[in-house]
Order: sequence, then structure tokens, then C-alpha cells
Amino acid sequence: MAPKVVICGILTWAHEDVKELLGPIAEVVYFDSVDRADFLKGFQPGGKYEGAVAIFRDNNLTDKIGIFDQELVDGFPSSVKWIAHNGAGYDQIDVQACKAQGIMVSNTPGAVDDASATTALYLLISTFRNYAISERFLRELKWKPDGLAKRSHDLTGHTLAILGLGGIGMRLAELAHAFPMRIIYYSRHKVTDAPEWCEYFENVEEMLAQADVLSVHVPLNPNTVGLVGEKWIRALKRGAIIINTARGKVIDEDAMIRALEDGHLASVGLDVFPNEPEVNPKLLEFPHVTLLPHMGTETQDTQHKMEVRALKNIQDFLKTGSGKDIIPEMTDM
Amino acid sequence: MAPKVVICGILTWAHEDVKELLGPIAEVVYFDSVDRADFLKGFQPGGKYEGAVAIFRDNNLTDKIGIFDQELVDGFPSSVKWIAHNGAGYDQIDVQACKAQGIMVSNTPGAVDDASATTALYLLISTFRNYAISERFLRELKWKPDGLAKRSHDLTGHTLAILGLGGIGMRLAELAHAFPMRIIYYSRHKVTDAPEWCEYFENVEEMLAQADVLSVHVPLNPNTVGLVGEKWIRALKRGAIIINTARGKVIDEDAMIRALEDGHLASVGLDVFPNEPEVNPKLLEFPHVTLLPHMGTETQDTQHKMEVRALKNIQDFLKTGSGKDIIPEMTDM
Repeated sequence: MAPKVVICGILTWAHEDVKELLGPIAEVVYFDSVDRADFLKGFQPGGKYEGAVAIFRDNNLTDKIGIFDQELVDGFPSSVKWIAHNGAGYDQIDVQACKAQGIMVSNTPGAVDDASATTALYLLISTFRNYAISERFLRELKWKPDGLAKRSHDLTGHTLAILGLGGIGMRLAELAHAFPMRIIYYSRHKVTDAPEWCEYFENVEEMLAQADVLSVHVPLNPNTVGLVGEKWIRALKRGAIIINTARGKVIDEDAMIRALEDGHLASVGLDVFPNEPEVNPKLLEFPHVTLLPHMGTETQDTQHKMEVRALKNIQDFLKTGSGKDIIPEMTDM
Repeated sequence: MAPKVVICGILTWAHEDVKELLGPIAEVVYFDSVDRADFLKGFQPGGKYEGAVAIFRDNNLTDKIGIFDQELVDGFPSSVKWIAHNGAGYDQIDVQACKAQGIMVSNTPGAVDDASATTALYLLISTFRNYAISERFLRELKWKPDGLAKRSHDLTGHTLAILGLGGIGMRLAELAHAFPMRIIYYSRHKVTDAPEWCEYFENVEEMLAQADVLSVHVPLNPNTVGLVGEKWIRALKRGAIIINTARGKVIDEDAMIRALEDGHLASVGLDVFPNEPEVNPKLLEFPHVTLLPHMGTETQDTQHKMEVRALKNIQDFLKTGSGKDIIPEMTDM
């Protein structure tokens, strides 16, 4: 009997890919539950998901069944061995609970790099050049605000600090290097295959002191909540800019807003917020900041790539017993 | 007696540079006239600009004295030999009138390339990704529009057609090549020093048929008014995008709006308009287009570079009898 795979997420692009990648080797069952209890019941004997070995998941079903917290994960039977998350950030999955249950978790790292880094580049250009306020002025038929050039800068020749030189951070580095900007970075470890024009700093505050703009590219986990707080923000030069396309909670929002209020930060470009889809109304009081509603990977090209990559992890698992994109916590001590 | 130079434009950044570049070799006189007649009177015997050999000019005095049309140019005495325009586009100068009078005209080509191409890149990202409408949704606290991914694309792997591979077009090509996009271009002639990844098309319509996005980088002159008209727009694929950071009048605006209305064009990203600061209100009816109020070079870094470059043309002229940035019409047959 073919192993059962549950597609627990609304597929937008990869219906044909499911047939091609999993059709010949698995029994594919699509999510069809009214709520969390009903979903978990499906894994019980006689349920439609009974005996499932792998689950494709997407945040787009969180409204219906909640996040993959300990309660949900503990509700899976021992048949479940793999959760293939469709996305880079897997903060909606209780990784420790999965580990305790012997469930491997994969994400879709490479697939999101280009689209997310492009969003960060957009926010860089918009904040350096004050384009958000300019667009609003034009649409109000007021043409342009006075004196914008005095507060605006070219990217070229300025220094971009990247916090977390993973796939997205490295991709942003490449795009910003085209200008070129000077690229400096801090990661837990020096990235050995980074090009020589990416300058590693062992000391994060020394890096921050040299940055014209800081772009945040670390995942959200218990160690990174509020990581960019008062101290790091104040370690930036007066007039610096912060870009966040990672997760809202990685930055201490109150500290960031205080720094905008007193002018320590010239601007911010944010694609993510601590309690999406809510946006702190205080942010809207700064006319020159650029705020996007989590558009990082919102393209058909990238969303298709992501869905395919998540499905391929399941395909690889079924064929070989493992997949390419196992998240680091699974192998870390 | 040192040759007289008239600074006919409001300098923002280069006051110190004037002293350094021209101070030792020229008598510098700053514009101080109430209107066009008063300005021209200044060049007459006894006037404050009498005997001037070179004029630094900027569009920012057009409100006061009008453009450098034939009447104004004909009003200059024969002492005037050089007009150093502060900007890339010199459509506010009657070049033929200058030529007839034996006045050389220079512009500031290289200085604007980076900032203008960055603006074009911003418009590319914004239109491919539907960020303008997303930002407005967020600021209205509506989070994001539904189904945007279906209408949004990555830049990577798509084809950018560049109309006019001069300094700005080439700079955009470099920035877009970082993704990479496929770069195709049409110019009056093949650009011999362009990299091999810039594909030249002798036939503009063959180029347009392959483009996902067309970016316009030709100067405005009698030959380019309405250059991108009905025929060329319809030669683009259905769903293509047009970016314009050159001059509004290079595109037939009515034909462009018709193509937006019937869906032939998916979007446009415009930094320039035919009658600035007026904006055709019909453009505002398309919620997803990106419209900027001529922000191409609106940065302190670039505006400083431009002013210095215009002043250097005058310095070179005074020292050597010629300057680097003579506009092509001066040497063309």
C-alpha cells in the first residue's frame, strides 16, 4: 500500500506538481476538516488521515486549525514522520515537540531567497530615497514634498549591515553589491563560502556602529525574540535605517519606535510586524517610513517554487528516507 | 582680468566647490535678477553679467526666467561661449539656437546614472510585485489586497527591454543583471562596449515582442516626442509593463492609458509626466500602477555630484577651451 501524505494547506500553484511528484509513490489526501479537533480526529483509526507518514503544511490553514503547537503535534500518531512546511520561517511549528515525537521538519529555504531579498532591496531603496511619502504626495495631487533631497541618499557607497547571512541575507548582499554598497555582516559563525567582499564582524555592536542601514535576516525562535533591542538600536549611528523582512518579533518594536521619535533612526522599512495582520498605529504616524503587508514571497513564481520544494522534501523522504531541507534544530544538539 | 562665470541656478550643495573649482580662475557672479527681461539686461554693457563667457544653468530658475529658448539664447552677447546645464536632460535648452550663436552646451551625464537607474529599478520591483497598492492598503489598516500573488512576479528570469542604452540604461542593465534578468536593448546603434549579456536588437518591434517590461531611457527631443506610441505599445506582449524615468513626452500618454484600460499593459511605473507637475488624473484610477513625482536624482549625493560635474565642465572650458560633457547635438551633423 502506498504511504499516505496529507496536504494540509491550500495549494495554489502546485496541483499538477502533486500528481507528478507524489502521485506515483503515495496516496495523497487533501485537508478536509472543519476545525482542529476534527483535523486530529482524522488521524485516528478509521479517519481519513489514518496512517499518514508525511504532512505538507502551510500557514494558510492556521485560521482553521491553529498553529502546530505541542497539543497539535502530540495529537499526531506515531505513523507521522515528516512535516514539510511550505515557507522559510517555521515559527508556527513547535520544533521541540516534533523532535520529541521523532517527526522531522523541513522548510523551503532556497525557494524564498530571491523574492524576500528583493523585498528587502525595495525597502532599502524606498527608505533611502523617501519614495513612500513621495508616492502618497503624488496621489494626493500635491506633486512632491519640499526638501526631500536633503534627507535622501543613494544606496551606492553606503554600508549595509546584514544580521544573519543565510540564504536571504546572502541574496540581498548580492543585489546590494551590484551598486555597490559595502556589505558587512554578523552571524553566529563566519560564513565560509561568503565572497570576500562580505566583511564578517565577530562583534555585533562593532558592525552596527559602521552601518548606514541594518537589514534583519534571522529566524524567529526563543533566542531571537527582541534580539534587535534598545542596546543594538542605539549602537547604530544616528540617522541609520532598519529594514525588517524576517519576523516582526525579532525587533523590540517599542525601542524602534522610540528611536524613530527621537530621530536616532532616520527611517525604517518593514514587511513584517509582531502581531500580523495588526499594525501598531504609532508606525503610521511617521510619514516617511515604508510599510508593506508581509509581501516577502507574494509572487506566483516564488510561491510555486516553494510549494514544489516542500513537496520535493516529501518525495525525497518517501524515496530515500530523508529530505534536503531539514531545519537546523533537528540536527543541532 | 579673470573670465566671468554666471551661476544661473540655485546651488544647493556645491557652494564650497564653486570656490575651489572656479575661485582661482574666474570671476563668479551669482544670478540676481527679478525676471527674464532683467536677466537679459544684466548681460548688456554695464550689467552685472556683462562679458560673461560661461553660464551654469539649472531648471530650478525656469519659474523666474523661463526656459532657455531661442529668444533667451539670442539675447546673450557674443562673449557667452559655454552653457553648463546641471542635469542629464537638456530639453529646456534650444540647442539649435545655441549652436547658431556658437555657444557650446554641456550636461552632466554620468552623475545622474546611478540615482536615475535606481529609480527605474524601484519602479520595476514595485510594479512586478504590486507594492504601491499594498502600501496603501496597509496604511488604510486593511492589511493586504487578496490574490496579489496571482498578479505578481519575480524580476529574476524575466526579460527587461531597455530603450536607449546610454549611461542610465546601462546602469539599470547592471542592476537588473544582478538578479539576473535577461537584458535586451534597442539603440540607434549597437553599443560596442556593452557586455555580451546585453542583447542588441536592430528591430525595435522584435525586441518589444520579447519583453516582459520596457524601460525608457531616451532623451526628449523633436525626434523622440511620442516615440513610444500605439504601435510600439501594441508590439509588447499582453500583460507587459512600461517603466519611464526619462521624460513624460517620450510616451504617447493617451495610447498608454488605453492599453492600461484594455489590459494590454499590466502596469506602468512612472517617474515622469508630460506636463509636470501636473499628473493626468486618469492615471490615478489604476490602483496598481506606481507613480513617483520625478524623484530620479532627488538625493543629496547625486545632486552634489551633478553640480560639481557641471562646474567642472566650466572649469575645463576655462582652462583648456573645452569640457568633457558636450551634448551630442553639438558635434552631430
